[in-house]
Amino acid sequence: MVQPPGEPGRASGSGEFDRIDRYFKPLAAAFPGALGLANDAAVFGVPEGMELVVTTDAMVAGVHFLPDDPPRDIAAKLLRVNLSDLAAMGAAPLAYTLVTALPAGLGEDWIAAFADGLAADQRRFRIGLAGGDSVSTSGPVTLSVTAFGLVPRGMALPRSGARPGDAVCVTGTIGDGALGLMVALGTLDLDDAAARHLLDRLRRPDPRLTVGAGLRGLARACIDVSDGLVADLAHLCVESGCAGVLEADRVPMSPAARSVIGQDAARLATALTGGDDYELLFTVAPESVPTAVRLAADAGVPVAVIGRMTAGAGTVTVLRADGSPLALERAGWRHF
Amino acid sequence: MVQPPGEPGRASGSGEFDRIDRYFKPLAAAFPGALGLANDAAVFGVPEGMELVVTTDAMVAGVHFLPDDPPRDIAAKLLRVNLSDLAAMGAAPLAYTLVTALPAGLGEDWIAAFADGLAADQRRFRIGLAGGDSVSTSGPVTLSVTAFGLVPRGMALPRSGARPGDAVCVTGTIGDGALGLMVALGTLDLDDAAARHLLDRLRRPDPRLTVGAGLRGLARACIDVSDGLVADLAHLCVESGCAGVLEADRVPMSPAARSVIGQDAARLATALTGGDDYELLFTVAPESVPTAVRLAADAGVPVAVIGRMTAGAGTVTVLRADGSPLALERAGWRHF
Repeated sequence: MVQPPGEPGRASGSGEFDRIDRYFKPLAAAFPGALGLANDAAVFGVPEGMELVVTTDAMVAGVHFLPDDPPRDIAAKLLRVNLSDLAAMGAAPLAYTLVTALPAGLGEDWIAAFADGLAADQRRFRIGLAGGDSVSTSGPVTLSVTAFGLVPRGMALPRSGARPGDAVCVTGTIGDGALGLMVALGTLDLDDAAARHLLDRLRRPDPRLTVGAGLRGLARACIDVSDGLVADLAHLCVESGCAGVLEADRVPMSPAARSVIGQDAARLATALTGGDDYELLFTVAPESVPTAVRLAADAGVPVAVIGRMTAGAGTVTVLRADGSPLALERAGWRHF
Repeated sequence: MVQPPGEPGRASGSGEFDRIDRYFKPLAAAFPGALGLANDAAVFGVPEGMELVVTTDAMVAGVHFLPDDPPRDIAAKLLRVNLSDLAAMGAAPLAYTLVTALPAGLGEDWIAAFADGLAADQRRFRIGLAGGDSVSTSGPVTLSVTAFGLVPRGMALPRSGARPGDAVCVTGTIGDGALGLMVALGTLDLDDAAARHLLDRLRRPDPRLTVGAGLRGLARACIDVSDGLVADLAHLCVESGCAGVLEADRVPMSPAARSVIGQDAARLATALTGGDDYELLFTVAPESVPTAVRLAADAGVPVAVIGRMTAGAGTVTVLRADGSPLALERAGWRHF
C-alpha cells in the first residue's frame, strides 16, 4: 500500500480496514484456511489423491454488468461464473478469494448488499472466503474472484479429448443470458414473466457443479458456455483437433427464449452466439449418452444432444432443420 | 463475458484474445498446470506433506503506482508485493494468476513492456503464470495477482505466536519505499544516486523469500512490512496478544534514507510509518537471534534487532535513543 507521506488517507485509509472487518471477515469464518483474514495469506491443505483447480474471472461495471444492477445479483454472478469454470473442470468448490476495487463514493448500502449476496451464495454452494484485497479506484466498480475446487488427481475434465463421432451435448437451455441482456438494456418487448425469467438467468446463472463432477471419466471434452455456444464449441474443436456440427433446432431453449425468438433470425443468432449461458457443453462417446443424460437427470438438469464431432480442424458448422448451413457472423468468432 | 447483441466488440472483442495469445500464453509455458491457458482453470498438484499458500494483492494506477511509472517496474512490483506475502508465510513461490483490467486506449507498447517485466521476474523467482483474466475498463489500469506457494504442512509462519520477551527483528532497511515515493512525487531534493536508490527500492522491492523459508520453526510471528513498520508491528501485537517496543535509533536505514532524514522528525516518521518496505518483521526467542541473523546472512540479507515484545494488548511504543517515547500520528494507525 503506497500512501503519499503527508496525505494520510488519500489512497486507502481506515475505511478499507473497517470494511474488511465489517463485511468480509464474517464471510471468511466459513473457511478455516483463511486464518480469519488476519494473515498475509491463506493456507490450503489439499487431501492426498486430490488436485486443486484454480480459476479467475473479473467483472467491471459498464462492461460485464450494468452499474445499477442489484448488488446481490452482481455478487451472485461474480461467484457463479467462477463456479461454472470449476464445474467445467469437474471440480467440487472449496473456497474463493475476492479483489474489490471500489470508487470512494460508493455507498455503504451497496457494499452491505453485495456482501449479503456473497453470504447467501456461500451457504448455497458451501464455500468460504479465503482472502483477498480491497482497494480504491477512480474508475468503475471492478471485481474479481479466484475460485478453488478439488478434483481427484488426473480427473479434471479436459477440453482436448473430443474425437470424431462423439455426441455433442449441452445442459439446460441456451440463449437466455444473451436475450436477458437485451431485456436489461430495454431492447426487447415481452411479457413480465418472460422478462423476469431471462433477467434472472442473466444475473443468477446456475453453475452445473453436480453434472460436471458426474462427468469425470465420462466426458471427453467439456467447457462452460460463456463466450457463446458456437464459439465455445469451436474452443473444444481447436483444442481437440476436430470439427463440430451443431443442429440449430436441437439446441434446447426456454419457453421465454422461444417466444422472443419466434421467426427472428437475428435473435436466433443472438441465442446461439451471445454467451453468458453458463451451461456445460461436452462431448461423450455415443454409447455414453444415456449415462450422461441419466446422471444429469438425477441432479435435476436436462441434457440434450445437439450435434456431433467430425474429422476436421477447429471449425464449427451450424445446420438448419433442413440440413442447410446457417450463416452466423459475430465478434466472438473473430479469433478463430 | 457479456456482449450486447448487435454491438460486437463493445465489451471485449478479439483484441483481448490476441493479447492473451501474444503476451500471456508465453508466460504460462513455465507452469504446466496452466494447461497453456487453454482450459477453464489451472490444476495444481500439491505434494504430500505440503500445503498451498495463497495471497492476493491488487494495484490501481493513480493509487498504488503513478500512471507514468515504467510498465516493467509495475510488473515487478505487482509480482513482488505478492511474493513478499509468501515470504512472510515462509512459503516457496510456485505460480501466479493475473487479472488485468486495461483501458481501451492503452498502447501495445505498454502491454509488451509489462509482459516483459513479468517474464523477467518469472525467471528470477522461478515461477510461471497459471491463468487469469483480461478485461477492458473505462477506468484506470487495474491489476491483481494471486500468488501460490508451498510450505511444509503446519509450518506456515503465523502472526499470532509472539510472546513477551521475544526479540523484534527486521531484515534489510526501512523507509526507502516511503521516501522513494516522495522522490517519485518530486517532493524531495537530493543527489541522483540517492534518488535512484530510493526509487528502485520503491519500484522493485526484494521479497525476502530465502529468509522467510529459513525462519520456519524459528520465528514465532512474522509479517512483511507493507502498511508501515509501526503499523505492521501492531498487527503482530494484536494477533499475538502482546505489546511491542521499538527503538527508533536501532531501525536499520540505507545511507540514502539517512541522508534524506537528517534531523527532520517528519521524515523520520515517514520512514517508520510510511510502508512499502517489503522487509520481513518477525519475533524470535532471544536465544534464537544469532541463528536468525546467521541464516539471513547466508542469504546475503542483514537482520537487525529493533525492539522487544512485552506484556500488553496490541499497542506499540516507539522510543528515542534517550528512552523517551516518540509520538507518531498517521492514517495507517487509525484502525488500531
